[in-house]
Amino acid sequence: MPSDPFFHPVSGFDLPRFAGVPTFMRLPHVSPDHPRFNDVQIGLIGVPWDSGTTNRPGPRHGPRQLRDASTMIRAQHQPTGMRPFETAACADLGDVGPNPADIADSMTRITSFYDRVHQAGIRPLTAGGDHLTSLPVLRALARGGPLGMVHFDSHTDLFHSYFGGTMYTHGTPFRRAVEEGLLDPKRVIQIGIRGTMYDAEDRDFAKAEGIRIVEIEEFFARGVEDVMQEAREIAGTGPTYVSYDIDFVDPTFAPGTGTPEVGGPNSYQALQVCRALAGLNIVGADLVEVSPPFDSSGGTAFLGASIMFELLCAMLAGA
Amino acid sequence: MPSDPFFHPVSGFDLPRFAGVPTFMRLPHVSPDHPRFNDVQIGLIGVPWDSGTTNRPGPRHGPRQLRDASTMIRAQHQPTGMRPFETAACADLGDVGPNPADIADSMTRITSFYDRVHQAGIRPLTAGGDHLTSLPVLRALARGGPLGMVHFDSHTDLFHSYFGGTMYTHGTPFRRAVEEGLLDPKRVIQIGIRGTMYDAEDRDFAKAEGIRIVEIEEFFARGVEDVMQEAREIAGTGPTYVSYDIDFVDPTFAPGTGTPEVGGPNSYQALQVCRALAGLNIVGADLVEVSPPFDSSGGTAFLGASIMFELLCAMLAGA
Amino acid sequence: MPSDPFFHPVSGFDLPRFAGVPTFMRLPHVSPDHPRFNDVQIGLIGVPWDSGTTNRPGPRHGPRQLRDASTMIRAQHQPTGMRPFETAACADLGDVGPNPADIADSMTRITSFYDRVHQAGIRPLTAGGDHLTSLPVLRALARGGPLGMVHFDSHTDLFHSYFGGTMYTHGTPFRRAVEEGLLDPKRVIQIGIRGTMYDAEDRDFAKAEGIRIVEIEEFFARGVEDVMQEAREIAGTGPTYVSYDIDFVDPTFAPGTGTPEVGGPNSYQALQVCRALAGLNIVGADLVEVSPPFDSSGGTAFLGASIMFELLCAMLAGA
Amino acid sequence: MPSDPFFHPVSGFDLPRFAGVPTFMRLPHVSPDHPRFNDVQIGLIGVPWDSGTTNRPGPRHGPRQLRDASTMIRAQHQPTGMRPFETAACADLGDVGPNPADIADSMTRITSFYDRVHQAGIRPLTAGGDHLTSLPVLRALARGGPLGMVHFDSHTDLFHSYFGGTMYTHGTPFRRAVEEGLLDPKRVIQIGIRGTMYDAEDRDFAKAEGIRIVEIEEFFARGVEDVMQEAREIAGTGPTYVSYDIDFVDPTFAPGTGTPEVGGPNSYQALQVCRALAGLNIVGADLVEVSPPFDSSGGTAFLGASIMFELLCAMLAGA
Amino acid sequence: MPSDPFFHPVSGFDLPRFAGVPTFMRLPHVSPDHPRFNDVQIGLIGVPWDSGTTNRPGPRHGPRQLRDASTMIRAQHQPTGMRPFETAACADLGDVGPNPADIADSMTRITSFYDRVHQAGIRPLTAGGDHLTSLPVLRALARGGPLGMVHFDSHTDLFHSYFGGTMYTHGTPFRRAVEEGLLDPKRVIQIGIRGTMYDAEDRDFAKAEGIRIVEIEEFFARGVEDVMQEAREIAGTGPTYVSYDIDFVDPTFAPGTGTPEVGGPNSYQALQVCRALAGLNIVGADLVEVSPPFDSSGGTAFLGASIMFELLCAMLAGA
Amino acid sequence: MPSDPFFHPVSGFDLPRFAGVPTFMRLPHVSPDHPRFNDVQIGLIGVPWDSGTTNRPGPRHGPRQLRDASTMIRAQHQPTGMRPFETAACADLGDVGPNPADIADSMTRITSFYDRVHQAGIRPLTAGGDHLTSLPVLRALARGGPLGMVHFDSHTDLFHSYFGGTMYTHGTPFRRAVEEGLLDPKRVIQIGIRGTMYDAEDRDFAKAEGIRIVEIEEFFARGVEDVMQEAREIAGTGPTYVSYDIDFVDPTFAPGTGTPEVGGPNSYQALQVCRALAGLNIVGADLVEVSPPFDSSGGTAFLGASIMFELLCAMLAGA
Repeated sequence: MPSDPFFHPVSGFDLPRFAGVPTFMRLPHVSPDHPRFNDVQIGLIGVPWDSGTTNRPGPRHGPRQLRDASTMIRAQHQPTGMRPFETAACADLGDVGPNPADIADSMTRITSFYDRVHQAGIRPLTAGGDHLTSLPVLRALARGGPLGMVHFDSHTDLFHSYFGGTMYTHGTPFRRAVEEGLLDPKRVIQIGIRGTMYDAEDRDFAKAEGIRIVEIEEFFARGVEDVMQEAREIAGTGPTYVSYDIDFVDPTFAPGTGTPEVGGPNSYQALQVCRALAGLNIVGADLVEVSPPFDSSGGTAFLGASIMFELLCAMLAGA
Repeated sequence: MPSDPFFHPVSGFDLPRFAGVPTFMRLPHVSPDHPRFNDVQIGLIGVPWDSGTTNRPGPRHGPRQLRDASTMIRAQHQPTGMRPFETAACADLGDVGPNPADIADSMTRITSFYDRVHQAGIRPLTAGGDHLTSLPVLRALARGGPLGMVHFDSHTDLFHSYFGGTMYTHGTPFRRAVEEGLLDPKRVIQIGIRGTMYDAEDRDFAKAEGIRIVEIEEFFARGVEDVMQEAREIAGTGPTYVSYDIDFVDPTFAPGTGTPEVGGPNSYQALQVCRALAGLNIVGADLVEVSPPFDSSGGTAFLGASIMFELLCAMLAGA
Repeated sequence: MPSDPFFHPVSGFDLPRFAGVPTFMRLPHVSPDHPRFNDVQIGLIGVPWDSGTTNRPGPRHGPRQLRDASTMIRAQHQPTGMRPFETAACADLGDVGPNPADIADSMTRITSFYDRVHQAGIRPLTAGGDHLTSLPVLRALARGGPLGMVHFDSHTDLFHSYFGGTMYTHGTPFRRAVEEGLLDPKRVIQIGIRGTMYDAEDRDFAKAEGIRIVEIEEFFARGVEDVMQEAREIAGTGPTYVSYDIDFVDPTFAPGTGTPEVGGPNSYQALQVCRALAGLNIVGADLVEVSPPFDSSGGTAFLGASIMFELLCAMLAGA
Repeated sequence: MPSDPFFHPVSGFDLPRFAGVPTFMRLPHVSPDHPRFNDVQIGLIGVPWDSGTTNRPGPRHGPRQLRDASTMIRAQHQPTGMRPFETAACADLGDVGPNPADIADSMTRITSFYDRVHQAGIRPLTAGGDHLTSLPVLRALARGGPLGMVHFDSHTDLFHSYFGGTMYTHGTPFRRAVEEGLLDPKRVIQIGIRGTMYDAEDRDFAKAEGIRIVEIEEFFARGVEDVMQEAREIAGTGPTYVSYDIDFVDPTFAPGTGTPEVGGPNSYQALQVCRALAGLNIVGADLVEVSPPFDSSGGTAFLGASIMFELLCAMLAGA
Repeated sequence: MPSDPFFHPVSGFDLPRFAGVPTFMRLPHVSPDHPRFNDVQIGLIGVPWDSGTTNRPGPRHGPRQLRDASTMIRAQHQPTGMRPFETAACADLGDVGPNPADIADSMTRITSFYDRVHQAGIRPLTAGGDHLTSLPVLRALARGGPLGMVHFDSHTDLFHSYFGGTMYTHGTPFRRAVEEGLLDPKRVIQIGIRGTMYDAEDRDFAKAEGIRIVEIEEFFARGVEDVMQEAREIAGTGPTYVSYDIDFVDPTFAPGTGTPEVGGPNSYQALQVCRALAGLNIVGADLVEVSPPFDSSGGTAFLGASIMFELLCAMLAGA
Repeated sequence: MPSDPFFHPVSGFDLPRFAGVPTFMRLPHVSPDHPRFNDVQIGLIGVPWDSGTTNRPGPRHGPRQLRDASTMIRAQHQPTGMRPFETAACADLGDVGPNPADIADSMTRITSFYDRVHQAGIRPLTAGGDHLTSLPVLRALARGGPLGMVHFDSHTDLFHSYFGGTMYTHGTPFRRAVEEGLLDPKRVIQIGIRGTMYDAEDRDFAKAEGIRIVEIEEFFARGVEDVMQEAREIAGTGPTYVSYDIDFVDPTFAPGTGTPEVGGPNSYQALQVCRALAGLNIVGADLVEVSPPFDSSGGTAFLGASIMFELLCAMLAGA
């Protein structure tokens, strides 16, 4: 059933792309207390939060810059012809307000917001925020049982702790998620892993739990299609989360991020991996670690917005 | 009468300043078809348009960047203690959609929007756009007769035409406005004029019509207080428009503009001149020529937003 | 016949590359009133004009920055050993002066300049300017009948109109050119098309007229050689124009442009497609949409200058 | 007694200023376990920490960029002829390692480091870090009783709490310091305060406690000399701390900071206020809130390093 | 006698300022072998050379960027109404080609070029290059005897040598010039000197020779008018050279330079000091140390071009 | 034998990566007069020198920025699991102090430093500096006879001279090295050569001497593995030097360099070629031409630091 025109974005043929208050993809702004909230099917949400960052901060500014860049996105997906905004009711649900000086309080606020979204039957497409963002989101989405996950990143984010025992950082979310039963490790695949390593503690955990890691050498040797077919097999038909760290992409294509690792995929491959998600049962997705202070040209934000559009199409291709 | 809390901006103590969809000063977004439109007293409006620019374009991106920067503005004016958002109902009325490839069509669209605003009894505070923006705005505001004007700028914008007879550029708006009877030249003062000159054709026009020009040497020699007292006397008690070209300010303080002239006022003086407008009968004001492509650090936008806040307070100080 | 040393560029072994008044590739500046004008065989021309831009302006600054970057270009083409400046008399013919505030006037000026160039038997290599530049150029070059065209771009630029009927923008030049009989659609191929779409109106027009569109997925799947062989077959032996929009290239390699689309060719492929033009009967070529305000590092200008050198060699390889 | 040559910086006449591992002002790196630690009289210390930042993060990168910029500082103070490095044994004591994801743990680490410094009889000159840095430093320095303070800033940093009760942020350190008895409010003066305000809660606290606030209007009206004479009188002869927030300076001169307020002092005044501290009994000083991600040209860091040199001279002028 | 229209710059009313091959102030390019060379009265010359730089290089790129920025300069001087290009025949004489890897060879080339200029009766206005540039220029201009000099700078450039005996660097030109009898030290004044010092060796030399140094504290205390009256008295009526190092200006206003010192004059004062040169017998002038790699916004180049225009007017005001 | 913990870098799990005085890869700073100097096996050395640069200067700032970026490097090599800092005693030996205004003096200083390093049995890994740096280094390392060399670059650096006979520039080091008997031309391979050419004089020299040049077209056609196998065969088992000019990499991935050539390898290939050096008898290696003034985002420095880590692993893989 085509979506209500209320939910259609403003066209660039009518209002130039640089004009107007910038919401995600020029969609209507529908906060939880808006009368149309319960009609939304896919909610684009910002989580401007980076308190879990152990190195260079900045992703708290991500959602605003992604909104700005996303006004360049148009209505139709080129390779498939899909028109997602006519396929499902999409809206910008606004930002979750974090507490920049209290990690625990922020996680509570985020989970609480996503509980409300989830209960309204809205599938969330999140713009982070650093990668710790995924943890409080998963806490809301996995209330019905552990999820599978397709995870694009240059890091595993599976470490036990940092700085002498600190458990909640952007290097630990999926360790916690497995421990808390939010993810089914056998249905988790991590793609693009690379860069110099502290040690192999994260890899050992992955091996022990059954998490599949595809390092970048294997990724380039096998190619996108082959790797992504395996990803679909691992995630299977169950409810699946997609987490996309922008540092999966080579830092030349995505400099605006805090922990870059050279030697990664290019921008075309960055889109291709999303297209190969079609058919999965995606209950939510996020794009994280876009850090505007390190993105002087705005290119990372535009790539990020393009990836969000691809994720949106993938979420609908599986419906 | 204190304004309705509906019109109060979101506080940075509740939601961090970097969070949320960026409207002007975190005010509610009230477009002309919104049910509360007629309750608005001061409307902040973007005009993302720079087709009149003869040199370096970019002000079409001004409103969006000014919105972003304006989220750093808080609730209370330091020198006076005024809390403008509690004093009057203020709102972000959105952008006027221009036609970037048709000057005449754009001017019609702008005047039409401001007619509607004016008829609703809303006083506009405009974020341009290049300086040609002021012309279609004045066409709406001056329907009741010619206005006085206090004009801050490094250029007079009083030229007859460019490029062999082109009448509508950002160097000609006030020549047109005088010719069309929108401004009373005897009640017009231009402050801060400087920079190398093509010739004296604009100054001759000013002299002939009785427009008062305060060049920068006089401005610095006499000081802000003395010059502004004269400005208040010239504008008098009649309805007055305030037009603030960001290139009034020295380009080191405001690099994000297309036609900079070195040797201008600093940022403190940029605020002081606004504060000295208190008491005037201001029917509208604009801040124009903020050009984000030339403002890599964002400092011009933040200064521009700070000036807009000062203009807002001045509009209310005269009520 | 080797060219007159008057037309040889200054060598970087004699004068360092950063020194001297920057003309295109350090060639002599030969404006139409120069005594050697009629001896020129290939004229490098700037068209500093972007009034057709519907989104982010800036290409009016393109020619100057391309001249600056082009002083890094040396005398010999590496893959073929061609020394173009000794092969043909090349010169910088200067800029066409546009009217930044009048589109129709500007188009007249441009066509008039190119008429003079064309009548002098000079083949033009143009540095834009936005893509609307190609239309008034084609009006001069196609006086003898419709031309074929090889067109590198991420957009088709075949739309009917924008903003409620505006016919002349950088999204419409080739629609106009086909309508005006300047191009033979059966001899036109567009390569690299990608990005989110408004709708398929442009593709429908292409299909109806017989224009061949190679979308980016096909381009990457088949490879440069195979696609370019088809391009040569489509253009055939007749007079052919080459139009190269810098946004054909991935925006990471060419950030300095107004309407980027991620997921495009890299810089090596950007050169390869030019080399594969050798043998065509090229009557003129352009490189457009280089926008310095969005090219903070200058990398786009240097890539653009390198592409211009390749186009120059291709124009001579076909002689 | 002139200092040991071991403590003299490397001269730019011997080793070019861009060469060498960058320590503060090219001083020897003497960490607490170094054999010469107890010979140090003034210790330059970095606190790369910004977890208290409520808006734009970045000061965690401050110490490293300040070290880099400080290699431009030479040996002699121009206005007085003082040669501080020959006057006292100065050294770079390195950085205090914070825990970026745990505020309480970080404060403990900082206080512990400064306890050790203080016990060794070393006076600390700190490079922050955000303004919360001052609190754990004061906890170590004020063990002998409350200190006086001369505080340069555009904000009072006297708020009670943020985001619903969060007590430790960069907007609250001096509220806490007064509450904890680390500062004697009667001997505290805050200079340069300006910018839009949330409300007057901080000013009410200052008034109740007897803290003197000099707002920017008063500062400019009276001039540096007059204001600073009052500052010296307020601080008196007792042990005094100097806290210098770089946002005291106008953001055009110091863009690299997270919470700028336009309309502040220029760079000459920024130095003058330090020179007027001579004669005070300074037990420690800090320069905070330098945020490299917002300082693309590096000018803020160089100004910051210049201010640190002035503070160093002031610390010695009072000996 | 008004100058020949051949020597008039192109007007921005005819050709937009961003168009055309960029020569200094849009003047004709008249190299020494041009037929009109001997008609030139004031020659604008670039010396793209920075081999004397002891810290951050870049001024070799100065002339090109100054040419680009100078296209924003118009025909008439605002404070006086002078129209310099109609008063004297001005032209862009091009660049002197240095040898970037051989200091002695470069100095020979520069002196040789200026000998030719001087013999043609052309007064040179030079765009450097680092400050060593002034030495080979003075060698040509002082063939008739030692000159007076008004020197704006933050450094004296009077050191004996660097790095163990290197005599020719940008810190030594005026020491050499005095030693070589090119300058009459009694007729030399240095204005704006400031910044941390290696030692007082340069000041001792100045004192011994009778060079007048006005440090920045004195400059601000006395004001521009008073200091410049003394400058005119010191230079007297004899032939005088003006050397303007852009680092005289505060680095916030002129970040694009290699050895900045904070706490300097603003852009208005930067112009005022030039205006106060009127009446002197100026035989040549230079603006040096503009370093584009450190001038990301281009503001330094525009200020530099504005200063060059002021110097040009001062050279003609004394005629 | 595992290395002494004294030589282990500080872990980012203990001290955040942005903290601490930045040495190469957080190694101990061991200058030649340090007691542990003779225990070092691999010495990381900075040569901040660019006097041989014929175009855009800046590599003198390379070592400092590479040190800063290298603090992001961790302890373990991902593809092989090697932990180089535990395999060999590595240290930061500091910078060689050049004389920026005297090329011959600088070369003497550099050779002298490397003689001392070489005599201590330390293998050097150098961070330049422009490419002339390699010549004085080779003079020290080749005292035992000519070396083989694997050379990654876009230029051959084999020219005879510049600017009328200047023999020592960054375009001539390997011509000199062959002439001086420092390199065995039959054991030299140059990979990645591309870009427009002055002429073929360098290629003719290579051919005459037996130097193998792999142009970029051949590199891409054959692939990394095949080309590098040939490289290993050419270098053979004798002592071999590795020289890596960052402009080997495409300038989009490495914009921070002075003489870029478009159309080069990406960042993954940039790493792959290093990994294929394993097994060679590497007596020293350098990474040169990183130029921070042209690297606004810092990405080139981070790529450079990543390449240095790969070179380090290659040096140890061959042990």
